[in-house]
Amino acid sequence: MPMRRQRKILIVVVDGMGDRSVKELGWRTPLQSAKRPNMNWYAENGASGLVDVIAPGVPPGSDTSHLAILGYGPREVYTGRGPFEAAGVGLVGKKGDVAFRCNFATVDSEGNVLDRRAGRIKQPETTELAASLVGMRIEGVEAVVKEATEHRAVLLLRGPGLSPLVSDVDPHDLSPIRTCEPLAQEARKTARVVNAFVQKSYERLRVHPVNARRRGEGKPEANILLPRGAGVFPDLAEFSSRYGLAGACVAGVSLIKGICRVCGIEVAEVPGATGGLDTDMRAKAEAVSSLLESKEFVLLNVKATDIPSHDGDFKKKIEIIEKVDGMIGQLRTTIPADTVVAILADHCTPVEVGEHSGDPVPLVVYSEDGVRDGLSSFDESSASRGGLGRILGKDLLPILLDRANRSEKFGA
Amino acid sequence: MPMRRQRKILIVVVDGMGDRSVKELGWRTPLQSAKRPNMNWYAENGASGLVDVIAPGVPPGSDTSHLAILGYGPREVYTGRGPFEAAGVGLVGKKGDVAFRCNFATVDSEGNVLDRRAGRIKQPETTELAASLVGMRIEGVEAVVKEATEHRAVLLLRGPGLSPLVSDVDPHDLSPIRTCEPLAQEARKTARVVNAFVQKSYERLRVHPVNARRRGEGKPEANILLPRGAGVFPDLAEFSSRYGLAGACVAGVSLIKGICRVCGIEVAEVPGATGGLDTDMRAKAEAVSSLLESKEFVLLNVKATDIPSHDGDFKKKIEIIEKVDGMIGQLRTTIPADTVVAILADHCTPVEVGEHSGDPVPLVVYSEDGVRDGLSSFDESSASRGGLGRILGKDLLPILLDRANRSEKFGA
Repeated sequence: MPMRRQRKILIVVVDGMGDRSVKELGWRTPLQSAKRPNMNWYAENGASGLVDVIAPGVPPGSDTSHLAILGYGPREVYTGRGPFEAAGVGLVGKKGDVAFRCNFATVDSEGNVLDRRAGRIKQPETTELAASLVGMRIEGVEAVVKEATEHRAVLLLRGPGLSPLVSDVDPHDLSPIRTCEPLAQEARKTARVVNAFVQKSYERLRVHPVNARRRGEGKPEANILLPRGAGVFPDLAEFSSRYGLAGACVAGVSLIKGICRVCGIEVAEVPGATGGLDTDMRAKAEAVSSLLESKEFVLLNVKATDIPSHDGDFKKKIEIIEKVDGMIGQLRTTIPADTVVAILADHCTPVEVGEHSGDPVPLVVYSEDGVRDGLSSFDESSASRGGLGRILGKDLLPILLDRANRSEKFGA
Repeated sequence: MPMRRQRKILIVVVDGMGDRSVKELGWRTPLQSAKRPNMNWYAENGASGLVDVIAPGVPPGSDTSHLAILGYGPREVYTGRGPFEAAGVGLVGKKGDVAFRCNFATVDSEGNVLDRRAGRIKQPETTELAASLVGMRIEGVEAVVKEATEHRAVLLLRGPGLSPLVSDVDPHDLSPIRTCEPLAQEARKTARVVNAFVQKSYERLRVHPVNARRRGEGKPEANILLPRGAGVFPDLAEFSSRYGLAGACVAGVSLIKGICRVCGIEVAEVPGATGGLDTDMRAKAEAVSSLLESKEFVLLNVKATDIPSHDGDFKKKIEIIEKVDGMIGQLRTTIPADTVVAILADHCTPVEVGEHSGDPVPLVVYSEDGVRDGLSSFDESSASRGGLGRILGKDLLPILLDRANRSEKFGA
C-alpha cells in the first residue's frame, strides 16, 4: 500500500513583480525581459496559472494580498492597516484592540502642523520619545505607543467599548490638526480617548529633553503624535491550528511581518533583510533553508521588486528580478527536494502606472509529482496558458496543502 | 425558424481516474500512459477542462463528489455518509430520518468487542439476523435494520425529535462498546434510543438460531450491531423536478446508488455490475444504451479504476483505464448520436498517495455542435489547456443542461 507522505511548503512572494507590456521593452513585461533560468525551471517542471489575489480587477494592498495568500478571505478578515503595522513593530494586540498608524510631527502652540514628519526624525530619538508616553490610561483605556521606521509610530488602545470608526487626527497636510470624530454612535468614547491622548502626548513631548536638544540644533521638534488609519485587531484563527502547520516568515518589510504575527506565524529576524533594494537575498535564502529544517511552512517575501515598480524604473526592475531569480536558484538547491514550492507576485505594480494594479499575478506551483503543463517560461503571458488556470488568492493555500498531502477530505 | 431540439445527457464518472505524475512512467500519469482512442475521440470532437469537484485543493469523498456532479452544492446538502449508505441498500429515508452505518460484531457478556466483523459474516446469514430485528419501536421511534455488503448493515431511525449529533457506539477497535452520547442538547432522546436499540439487538441476536449454528461451527457469533457515523436524511429537491429530467443511474457501488436514490434518480440493477475489478463493463454500457431510450439523463459510474489507485498499482490502473476506454467506445456507437456526453473522474486518487487528493479532475464534454478546442488528447495535462477552463463540480450539470438545450433563461 502506498504511503501518504507529507511534504513541506514554501511560498515565495516577489512583491509587485507582475507588470503590463512596456513600449520601450518591445511591448514585453519586465519579467518577460529578465533572464530568469530558475523561475523558468519551475515553469518547466511545474504548472503555471494566474491569480486574482483579491478578485478580478481589484488591486490588492500588500496586507490584503498576504492575508489571501495565507488562505484567509481578505474581505472577511481585513480590518484596516493599523493593526498589522502595530504587529509589524511587535505590538500584537488581541481581538478588540484598536490600532492607529501615527507620525511624530511638529505643531505650533495653536495646533497648526508645521512639519508632518518632524524633520524626518528617526530612531533612537523616536524610541526615547515613545518611552515617555508609557503607562497612559484614559477612561479605563490603556494607550501603548511604539516607534516604527523613521518618523513613524503605532498607537494601540486596549480597553472596554472601543471602536475603529473614528476619523484621523492627522490632517495629511500643513493645516491645523483635526479633532478625532466618531463616525458612528458606538465610537464616541474612542474619539474622546484619542483626543485626550493627542493632548497628553503633546504635553509630555513638548517638554521632553530630546526636543530641547533638537531646538538647540535648530531641528523641528517632534512635539505631537498624529494618529490615522484606525483598525481593530481581527479575530483570526491561528495559522498553525487552522492548517496543522508550524509556519515561519522571512520578510524585510514591517507590514508583512505584522500580517504574519497577527496570524500567529513566527517571524524570523534575518540580518540584512531590509525590505529595500540593498536587501541581502542570499541571507534570506539561507534563512529559508534553515527554517525548513524545523518548520513545515515558510513564507518568503522579497520587497525589492516593488520599489523600482513604484518609481517607474523598468531597467532597475529587470535587474532586481534577475537577482531574485538567482535567489530562487539558491533555494532550489538547498531546500528539501520534495518541498512544494509556489512563486508568485502579491500584486502587479506596472512601471507605467507606479501603483498597484488589479491585473492577475503570475503563479507557478512545483511539486515533484505535480502534473506538468508543458510550459517552459514563467511570465504573465505564459502563465495565462498554464495548467492551474485562473484561481483566487485564497484558493492557493488549499491547493498547496493538497500537493503537500496535508489536505482533508470532504465526504467519505 | 430554427428549433431548440432537446438532447439527452450521459455523464460517465470514471472513479478515481485522475492522478499525478508517476516517476516510473517517466513523470506521466496513468491516464497519459494508457491507450485511450475513444476518450481521445471525445477530446478531439469536444472540449476539455479541469474540475474542482468540491473546491480547489479539497479532496472529495465519493458521496460529496457525486452530489456535486448531480448539481447539488455539496457543502449545503451533505449530512454525512449514513443516509446514503442506507439508501444504497434500499432504505431510502425521508427528511429528518437519522441513519447509521453498522457492523455486525462479536461481544462478550460484559460488552467487550472480540471481533468488529463477527468473523466476516455475510449474507444470507446477515439477512436472517437483520430480519429478527424488524418492528422495533423505542420512545415512539421506529428502528429499521437492513444488511449491506459482508458484515455491514444500516440502521434507520424514524420518529419525532431525532438528531444526528450523537457519538458512535462502535469503539473502532477491540475495546468495550461505547455508550452513545448526545453531542448537543437536542440529541439526548436520540442517544437514549440508540443505546436501547443496541441493548435490544444484543438480546435478540445472541439467542438467534444463526448464532447457535455459528457457535457449533466454532465461528464468532454476530451478537450485536454497532452503529456509527450518524447522519440525517437531507431535504433534497428531487432531480426530476429540479431539472425537468427523468434520470437513471448505472453503478456497482452501493454508496453511489444511495446518492442517486436520495436524489430521486432511478437505479438500474445490472447483473455483473459489481463495483469491483471484475465488473462487467460491456453489460453496463448495454444498460446505459437501453436506458437512454426512455430516460433523458443517465449517470454511469465505473468504480474499477479507483481500486488499483488505492492499492498504488499503476500498471493495473492503466489496464483498467484501457478497459474503460473500450466501454466508452462501445457507448459511442450505441447511444443516440446527439447525446451530450461528459466524461470525468469524481476525484483524483494518485497511485503514489493511495487516497483521494484535491487535484482538479480532467473533464471532456461532447455535444454535436459544441465548440471544439483543438485538443486531441484526454488527460490531466491536456485538459488544463482545454476550452472549458477550470470549473467547479456543481457547475457541470447546468453546462450539460444547456448543451442539451434544456437550460432556463435568467432574465428577459
